[in-house]
Amino acid sequence: MQRIAYIGLGNMGFPMAAHLVQKGFKVDGFDLDAAVREQLPSIGVSACSTIKEVVAQADVIISMLPADQHVLDVYISGQYNLLSLASKARLIIDCSTISAQTAVTLFNAAKAQGIPCIDAPVSGGIGGAKSGQLTFICGGEQEHVTQAEPILLAMGSQVFYAGEAGCGQIAKMCNNMLLAICMIGTSEALQLGIDFGLDPKILSDIMRASSGNNWTLEKYNPCPGVMAYAPAAQDYQTGFMVDLMNKDLNLAMQATMQSKTATPLGMLARSLYQQHARQGYGQRDFSSIFKLFAQLPELATEK
Amino acid sequence: MQRIAYIGLGNMGFPMAAHLVQKGFKVDGFDLDAAVREQLPSIGVSACSTIKEVVAQADVIISMLPADQHVLDVYISGQYNLLSLASKARLIIDCSTISAQTAVTLFNAAKAQGIPCIDAPVSGGIGGAKSGQLTFICGGEQEHVTQAEPILLAMGSQVFYAGEAGCGQIAKMCNNMLLAICMIGTSEALQLGIDFGLDPKILSDIMRASSGNNWTLEKYNPCPGVMAYAPAAQDYQTGFMVDLMNKDLNLAMQATMQSKTATPLGMLARSLYQQHARQGYGQRDFSSIFKLFAQLPELATEK
Amino acid sequence: MQRIAYIGLGNMGFPMAAHLVQKGFKVDGFDLDAAVREQLPSIGVSACSTIKEVVAQADVIISMLPADQHVLDVYISGQYNLLSLASKARLIIDCSTISAQTAVTLFNAAKAQGIPCIDAPVSGGIGGAKSGQLTFICGGEQEHVTQAEPILLAMGSQVFYAGEAGCGQIAKMCNNMLLAICMIGTSEALQLGIDFGLDPKILSDIMRASSGNNWTLEKYNPCPGVMAYAPAAQDYQTGFMVDLMNKDLNLAMQATMQSKTATPLGMLARSLYQQHARQGYGQRDFSSIFKLFAQLPELATEK
Amino acid sequence: MQRIAYIGLGNMGFPMAAHLVQKGFKVDGFDLDAAVREQLPSIGVSACSTIKEVVAQADVIISMLPADQHVLDVYISGQYNLLSLASKARLIIDCSTISAQTAVTLFNAAKAQGIPCIDAPVSGGIGGAKSGQLTFICGGEQEHVTQAEPILLAMGSQVFYAGEAGCGQIAKMCNNMLLAICMIGTSEALQLGIDFGLDPKILSDIMRASSGNNWTLEKYNPCPGVMAYAPAAQDYQTGFMVDLMNKDLNLAMQATMQSKTATPLGMLARSLYQQHARQGYGQRDFSSIFKLFAQLPELATEK
Repeated sequence: MQRIAYIGLGNMGFPMAAHLVQKGFKVDGFDLDAAVREQLPSIGVSACSTIKEVVAQADVIISMLPADQHVLDVYISGQYNLLSLASKARLIIDCSTISAQTAVTLFNAAKAQGIPCIDAPVSGGIGGAKSGQLTFICGGEQEHVTQAEPILLAMGSQVFYAGEAGCGQIAKMCNNMLLAICMIGTSEALQLGIDFGLDPKILSDIMRASSGNNWTLEKYNPCPGVMAYAPAAQDYQTGFMVDLMNKDLNLAMQATMQSKTATPLGMLARSLYQQHARQGYGQRDFSSIFKLFAQLPELATEK
Repeated sequence: MQRIAYIGLGNMGFPMAAHLVQKGFKVDGFDLDAAVREQLPSIGVSACSTIKEVVAQADVIISMLPADQHVLDVYISGQYNLLSLASKARLIIDCSTISAQTAVTLFNAAKAQGIPCIDAPVSGGIGGAKSGQLTFICGGEQEHVTQAEPILLAMGSQVFYAGEAGCGQIAKMCNNMLLAICMIGTSEALQLGIDFGLDPKILSDIMRASSGNNWTLEKYNPCPGVMAYAPAAQDYQTGFMVDLMNKDLNLAMQATMQSKTATPLGMLARSLYQQHARQGYGQRDFSSIFKLFAQLPELATEK
Repeated sequence: MQRIAYIGLGNMGFPMAAHLVQKGFKVDGFDLDAAVREQLPSIGVSACSTIKEVVAQADVIISMLPADQHVLDVYISGQYNLLSLASKARLIIDCSTISAQTAVTLFNAAKAQGIPCIDAPVSGGIGGAKSGQLTFICGGEQEHVTQAEPILLAMGSQVFYAGEAGCGQIAKMCNNMLLAICMIGTSEALQLGIDFGLDPKILSDIMRASSGNNWTLEKYNPCPGVMAYAPAAQDYQTGFMVDLMNKDLNLAMQATMQSKTATPLGMLARSLYQQHARQGYGQRDFSSIFKLFAQLPELATEK
Repeated sequence: MQRIAYIGLGNMGFPMAAHLVQKGFKVDGFDLDAAVREQLPSIGVSACSTIKEVVAQADVIISMLPADQHVLDVYISGQYNLLSLASKARLIIDCSTISAQTAVTLFNAAKAQGIPCIDAPVSGGIGGAKSGQLTFICGGEQEHVTQAEPILLAMGSQVFYAGEAGCGQIAKMCNNMLLAICMIGTSEALQLGIDFGLDPKILSDIMRASSGNNWTLEKYNPCPGVMAYAPAAQDYQTGFMVDLMNKDLNLAMQATMQSKTATPLGMLARSLYQQHARQGYGQRDFSSIFKLFAQLPELATEK
């Protein structure tokens, strides 16, 4: 069985690594946070205190890091320079959500060291990580994605091959930009109906059965009272945070600068999410954008 | 069996009336256009040359008219004043897509004459009208919608009750505004992927299996080459015209003025569709908005 | 000297009528609000208790009414039907801000009674009305605008001739839509600078001397602390209310539906002002839109 | 008299250097393009063939480079590493329009070498460079800006101090974002008026005298036929190119990512300019955005 070095064991990485252990992989783990490292034995992961140590015996390296800078720091530059240490590794799987540009930089740097590398950002959030139902959207050479598939399916349920290096990041970013647009559009449509006295539950049913249907109506209705299990039912306390959606929308903005693509709804969605974060919702679920359009209760009564 | 007066037999009304006849209803038809009236016998509808004649024996009146003004002209004001002639009618079903305000005006005027009335705009387009697969989104009193149901199901496959008079119009308008947003958002996401070298077919598959999924990805992909049977495959020549989408978006704009709802993505979608119409696409399918974001071929080569 | 019937003596009409009296005109006044009528003698206006009475002796009729419906009610329909009563009048000056469509309706109805009519909406707000510094933007036949000029200059300082009937309304609406865009754009630019530590006063000076200059930087800076006398200095309590800006933006929306013009920034400005009104700012000055982009103080400290 | 090393003598730098010579400065010049270097003697600038040579005797270094990467390449990294060569220099004036982040990087790197440095991006375009009427918007330490002032005023007419290092870039970017918004807003307002039959010249006059006034109405009207000397009068062939406006809007986008500022109109303006560039207008003046809203002539006739 392959030996895996897992780097970055936060909210996402921790449950993902646990699934790997459960499926029989030998996993060594490293995280900058000592408190996290102390928890690793509880899920069967060997805690390592340095990058050098964690990659020493690794056949495969998986990373799940917060942003571009962390990926560059760990793999290429600075004190870590993982690529120079990982002489045995035959595959790098970077699950971080980062820019395509950095993904390509990593791919090329790894290639120069003779290590195959794929970008494999995930969709499904913390819930998917815990239940092992993540979707991996991969870029790189197809044979390396095929090679990674058994490992990815130990942590998730779907693997997509999007194209060459960086394409996994682009595809995820396109999807999340579209998700943001659909979430805001659905919120606007529901609020417009509510303002005319329609029951949001009935309106949701109608649109779900019609051409307005989208994932947010099916799984993640933003209007409180429509879906019992959605974040809207818990005051948007759980789920996919507004700040994380903003991170993804910023990656999309950055990509459009490179490609010179016009994405007016995508950019407006980003502006609205940014405004929403400024009003104090950064740590709430992204479906809370519904509140941006709602009538203030005290004003509603005045009418 | 009930006798039906059908008023307005254009692209939508004509095939809808044909379905009624096939299901055994006796249908009298009136249209302002004499050429249309001459075609009516071919589908088993008795052609009448005046409003007075068409409603004389009607139990139920169905109308499918282009806009608010036509509905007001036919039913209430001017030379026709249908409501004063329809002494026998026990139900009015207005299938026109109009403002909620006019729908309520008609409802009240009909009520004053003792005739129950529902607004029942449709979703599904000309294709749905021909195949008898329309969806009816109804407003009015619930018992009258129930009463209309057998007739509606003779022309379609789904009937929704949205709420009181005008709510059918509001629900349809919310749905179509959301559809416009999803169509543009999907176009932007696909173009962003294409600009980075992704195959739009693969990207569509990925988003369809992920949180960006929406009806346009499932049934109506705007990118040529992705779906064999979509309007994009036929240079956007068939389908739901940009001018009609603009009509629906204008109804939504008008509604937001009344309700004071903020719908930023909806209004931006309307601006982009208006811009698209100005560039000569008014008579093309609404998924042609994809072209608004595409790189001009001659510029693409220059790169 | 001409005898003037003044209809609608609210926040704007009252000080405007006072200026007319001061310039020597004989003014009869009518307002639906009895409390207003009681105040009229204090500014030298004869209070009339009916429309019939106020127009009986009038050479010129001036109206300053809140919206389309009031103009139609007073002049044409319903109980008042002023046009049928004003046998002596030689000129109607409607200063209300209404749709071009209604302005044209009034023009035609007045013409049918042989009474010349111009639309003359004003710019300058309550401040301009009080100081006699209003700008009148007129539509109708040029000779009638010329005829009205001495009267208009008794209440204001500038008279523009925009074109045929309704063009005064269109020009004002274009101006106010542009004003809304400039106000929001200026707010965004200032906030962006502030977020990078720039002094908004210095940044305002720089942009005012550069190509970003606009009326809001010159006269109406939205950022508190930059201009001593601007509404921003008084917590946006005085000035031109958000609700009134929304009324004007709605008129612009309505116009674009008629003309099929794409005005993406104008419509987004409308969405943002509507959102702002929903958050409780309807009765504040329109420069308070600045707050839509500001960092919440408690969040700012958190950083 | 100070000896100046001028690096980057393209469309902007060339005429700027010519003004310096005319005011009596001794100027050595370097440009990567040999053809440019050959032209330098014609304006009295000594052509140098290397960076090393150009800075050897320089008291002051001025650079006018296209983008961030060039500035980093010239001053800090790679083969040039100017900072290590410029032992005599007492002041660096970087006139390039780049990100604030890179400006700060340069400031710090120069400081480490003991060389004072200011960012001094310009406003005024090629016209301003030729006529010596540029505006400089400066960031850095105030004493160094004061020190640079005589040199800057040899090339321009106005010098602003915006704040610490990078603030010159931020202020310019805020100004240009606002300019883009005003230009598009003015175009929309003019087109709306035109669609209702107003003369754009009259409408421009009215708005210029009212609260919609802005720099584009005063100096740079985007509608052909209104201003004799504006780029609109020459089919937008001269002026400030759409591609350059997009560069500035991209810098603003990048800044908002760092500061987490919501700038909805700014981002929409960027999307519209990007769309415009895609339609083939990248090399036309930025006021050509007016055409994005115009009715196609062939469609206009159809109406």
